[in-house]
Amino acid sequence: MQARAADGQIIEVQSPDEALEVYRHSTSHLMALAVTELYPDTRLGIGPAISDGFFYDFQRGTSFAEEDLAKIEQKMRDLVAQDLPYQPAIVSVEQAIKEFGGRDEQLKVELIKEKCDERLSCYRVGSLVDFCTGPHVLSTGHIDPKTFKVVSLAGSYWKGDEKRDRLQRIYGTAFLTEADLHDYVHRLEEAKKRDHRRLGKDLDLFSIHEKAGAGFIYWHPKGAWLRHTIESFLREDLLRRGYQFVVTPHVAKMDLWRTSGHADYYRQNMYLLNIEGEEFALKPMNCPEHVTIFKTHRHSYRELPIRMAEFGTVYRFEKSGVLHGTLRVRGFTQDDAHIFCTPDQVYDEVLGVLDLAEHVLRTFGFEKYEVELSVWDPNQKGKYVGEAADWNLATATLIRALEAKGLPYQRMEGEAAFYGPKIDLKLIDAIGRKWQATTVQFDFNLPERFDAGYIGPDAKNHPVVMIHRAIFGSLERFIGILVEHYAGAFPIWLAPVQAAVLPISEKFHAYANHVKQALQSAGLRVHLDDRNEKVNLKIREGQLQKFPYMLVVGGREETERTVAVRNRFLGDEGAMPLEKFIEKVNDLVATKAVRP
Amino acid sequence: MQARAADGQIIEVQSPDEALEVYRHSTSHLMALAVTELYPDTRLGIGPAISDGFFYDFQRGTSFAEEDLAKIEQKMRDLVAQDLPYQPAIVSVEQAIKEFGGRDEQLKVELIKEKCDERLSCYRVGSLVDFCTGPHVLSTGHIDPKTFKVVSLAGSYWKGDEKRDRLQRIYGTAFLTEADLHDYVHRLEEAKKRDHRRLGKDLDLFSIHEKAGAGFIYWHPKGAWLRHTIESFLREDLLRRGYQFVVTPHVAKMDLWRTSGHADYYRQNMYLLNIEGEEFALKPMNCPEHVTIFKTHRHSYRELPIRMAEFGTVYRFEKSGVLHGTLRVRGFTQDDAHIFCTPDQVYDEVLGVLDLAEHVLRTFGFEKYEVELSVWDPNQKGKYVGEAADWNLATATLIRALEAKGLPYQRMEGEAAFYGPKIDLKLIDAIGRKWQATTVQFDFNLPERFDAGYIGPDAKNHPVVMIHRAIFGSLERFIGILVEHYAGAFPIWLAPVQAAVLPISEKFHAYANHVKQALQSAGLRVHLDDRNEKVNLKIREGQLQKFPYMLVVGGREETERTVAVRNRFLGDEGAMPLEKFIEKVNDLVATKAVRP
Repeated sequence: MQARAADGQIIEVQSPDEALEVYRHSTSHLMALAVTELYPDTRLGIGPAISDGFFYDFQRGTSFAEEDLAKIEQKMRDLVAQDLPYQPAIVSVEQAIKEFGGRDEQLKVELIKEKCDERLSCYRVGSLVDFCTGPHVLSTGHIDPKTFKVVSLAGSYWKGDEKRDRLQRIYGTAFLTEADLHDYVHRLEEAKKRDHRRLGKDLDLFSIHEKAGAGFIYWHPKGAWLRHTIESFLREDLLRRGYQFVVTPHVAKMDLWRTSGHADYYRQNMYLLNIEGEEFALKPMNCPEHVTIFKTHRHSYRELPIRMAEFGTVYRFEKSGVLHGTLRVRGFTQDDAHIFCTPDQVYDEVLGVLDLAEHVLRTFGFEKYEVELSVWDPNQKGKYVGEAADWNLATATLIRALEAKGLPYQRMEGEAAFYGPKIDLKLIDAIGRKWQATTVQFDFNLPERFDAGYIGPDAKNHPVVMIHRAIFGSLERFIGILVEHYAGAFPIWLAPVQAAVLPISEKFHAYANHVKQALQSAGLRVHLDDRNEKVNLKIREGQLQKFPYMLVVGGREETERTVAVRNRFLGDEGAMPLEKFIEKVNDLVATKAVRP
Repeated sequence: MQARAADGQIIEVQSPDEALEVYRHSTSHLMALAVTELYPDTRLGIGPAISDGFFYDFQRGTSFAEEDLAKIEQKMRDLVAQDLPYQPAIVSVEQAIKEFGGRDEQLKVELIKEKCDERLSCYRVGSLVDFCTGPHVLSTGHIDPKTFKVVSLAGSYWKGDEKRDRLQRIYGTAFLTEADLHDYVHRLEEAKKRDHRRLGKDLDLFSIHEKAGAGFIYWHPKGAWLRHTIESFLREDLLRRGYQFVVTPHVAKMDLWRTSGHADYYRQNMYLLNIEGEEFALKPMNCPEHVTIFKTHRHSYRELPIRMAEFGTVYRFEKSGVLHGTLRVRGFTQDDAHIFCTPDQVYDEVLGVLDLAEHVLRTFGFEKYEVELSVWDPNQKGKYVGEAADWNLATATLIRALEAKGLPYQRMEGEAAFYGPKIDLKLIDAIGRKWQATTVQFDFNLPERFDAGYIGPDAKNHPVVMIHRAIFGSLERFIGILVEHYAGAFPIWLAPVQAAVLPISEKFHAYANHVKQALQSAGLRVHLDDRNEKVNLKIREGQLQKFPYMLVVGGREETERTVAVRNRFLGDEGAMPLEKFIEKVNDLVATKAVRP
């Protein structure tokens, strides 16, 4: 791709990543030009390229409306047709202040004043001037009008600071080819269709009530069923793997959080309360309570490892503005566990967690994930607790376990928590999005703060090694991800309703009821739709409810003691004896098949 | 029994209950006399007869010690030998004030001044004078020294008011026969041995940590296992009975509690917190959140009844002084449910709850319970919400259901909650103590406050009938009761460890391990005691751990592929092939047998 650098030279951009960035940046200026031409009372904020496209922040008395987006897009096309050149200029700070001050662009002036450079590079395209390091495409004619889109509107603040000017952000995107844009738009639409907030309501899974507080989830029977099924599945697996469950309170006195360090380092995320004049807090994490239980006994090395698990509901402060369905909430249930072990046991334990994660995630159809290994920055040892030897052993163990599992990983230098290195797994869902889920973390901090140890074969006390780990991360979040991953069409072992029985008329209610009873006795979850409605309507609504199976019953089915099976994915499967259907479903449940 | 009334007449007390009360009251004066003779610096509070005996409150600078109790008891015997008469006298208020003022009994003077009567009856026995309506036994010689006991010490406040004088309470008891006292003392000792706080620690079920806050339970793996097993048992039963589970947050905004009325009427029991400047509270009850879920849809009468259940953890303020193990706590999990139904369905629903309670309680070996029916006071209609017709229908329905179940009940006039009448069941445990458990309550308040209704066959909106019910009441409390009821020796289906394998020496560790694996594969919960200790010590410790079975394995068992079975209740059952043992245990689990 040809582009014009800030010094006016034409350069050849080779790498596709760089080319995409130049292209998007140029399109973002094009969008700003379109906006300021259409709405001359608009002033400029910043307009960077981001991972999915770009945005531009604007200052304007009037609010933009959704309908304006199409107008802006059309105006951009018109400006493409005008083939306006992107003209760079290197100017002094004084010149820049004069230029932007003259345009009443006070936010830009503020930015310029903060810059230390003596000279700035600016680009002019049409009537728009913005300072920018470039490079840009040569002219708007080099932007293919079929490759960009104005996507959405949002609110923002100048410099992200709630106390500064409120701005309006317009998101756009551009791709190097029309096909890429098409894929992207398709993914966006797909994501919209899968939005767990909409499906959560349509499928009657959960609700959130402003009146009772944002960020707190009310699980309706069907959603609670999902939760329970997922919990039970993991619980049984963990018991088989030698985990023990505990149950700890949601409230603890500040003394505990002072010992753990949360009172000092996590206080701003904690909900505080007062009981008889003493300060308490809702637990933001389960760890200090698990260590408290560990500490109720002296432990011999022969008792280790102890794998202590809890579906522990924790409460953390989040600003109301960032709350999002079940994905970002103020109260959530971690599938938490802490492994207390000796240094000799660490490798097997980490491997065990990776095994577990692989098994569990695969069960939900997540075959692929990205792995990040976060290690410390050995040049800033002061930022971390624990000895170098511990860090090195822990990091080497994590690497050894990842290699044994054949998992490629990205090493994140200096990204470890202050208390130890960690592995994070990011799920890749059905439409290619990534979601943070499993984490395995060493903790050198809590054993020291709580003086948690074990008696070794040498009859001496040794500090115990503590590993935090969660597979799902949070049940709320994981279920949100699952809803989007499955687009609400849950595998039959998870589905709150596995089969709906649809009598074609009232005459067959008795047989339909018999079918329902038979399925229920076989342990299936069944919905009988005995409304006096046409069967086609029932099927249409059943599709929206994403029932794995709909069983239509009429005269023929009653006579032959069969059900006419409609598979959510495969459509009509024809009539089937009731027992055969039950057997089929039981097989799918037993194997946790992702699709019927 | 002969007794002397306040007017000096000798009367014959006929009823055994009255006789016991007279006897205890006289013994309480005897105890007060003994205390004031032994410790002349002691002043008197009150000294009533109570259900298990009596107490007397004393004011004294020095604290009584446990050792003093035996001294007091001995002094009482000496005073019995002196055969001192109980002498009544009717005196004027002025005389009484003079008499008690002269003795520096200021608390008594305060009481006398509060009395409206012109004349008071007093009894003198030895140097003690107390005012008392009597009657009393004729003299201390009429008290059999083998029928009373000074039981324990406790703190108290004058008039139960923390802001008034701190007093020392001495509990005593007396019975009409030596055998009755003996039974009582035995029950006391039995209760002490069964104390769930001691057993909870010995059996490693739970702990409470001052540092983390009194009144919050930490369930260790074995206790959490009990909880989970009890929850699962009830959950499965409820699902079969058409209940649906929900999961609701532990935190809600004050708006919700204002609608429900808790903000006005229950605030002093709620833990408050602040999020972004708004007031929130930990939930003290689940009801408002369940109504919130109910209200997310319009409901047709055809969808009712809806039986909405949750193991909902609630938090209520309790003064630290009244907290008691798991029986009285600040956070507890209710096995809560709310039934939303039409008036026509009420009878079946109440009957269903009583059926459920009977089934569940019987499973835990509670065959008997006392039933209380709390009704309103129709003369104080202003104290209650709801219409007279609703109250009458609800009360009649509760009675009809109790009668249909053949349950005798005590009618508690005016004891209904302000929102509706209720049935309470009090369990009677293995040593005859009563415990409040199951409750079934009508609620006329919340449906009105939340405007919760359903569409009737007339296509009009009707207020829904709401029934609260809990079977256990609280899991924490119920498990505490169970620990005491079973004295820690849980039935095999509940026992966290069902069998311990005890190799008689290291030579048999391999076979012991084989036995353990075989049992675990069969789904049993097994502990292998492979310490290098004598098998007798292992058995002794296993007895303390209350394992239902201990399986001793040595050379003979290894050769014959058997286990030598030791039944916790029946002792040695001899050698048994492993498969036979597994079969036996599985039978006991399947039938939820209370004893092996």
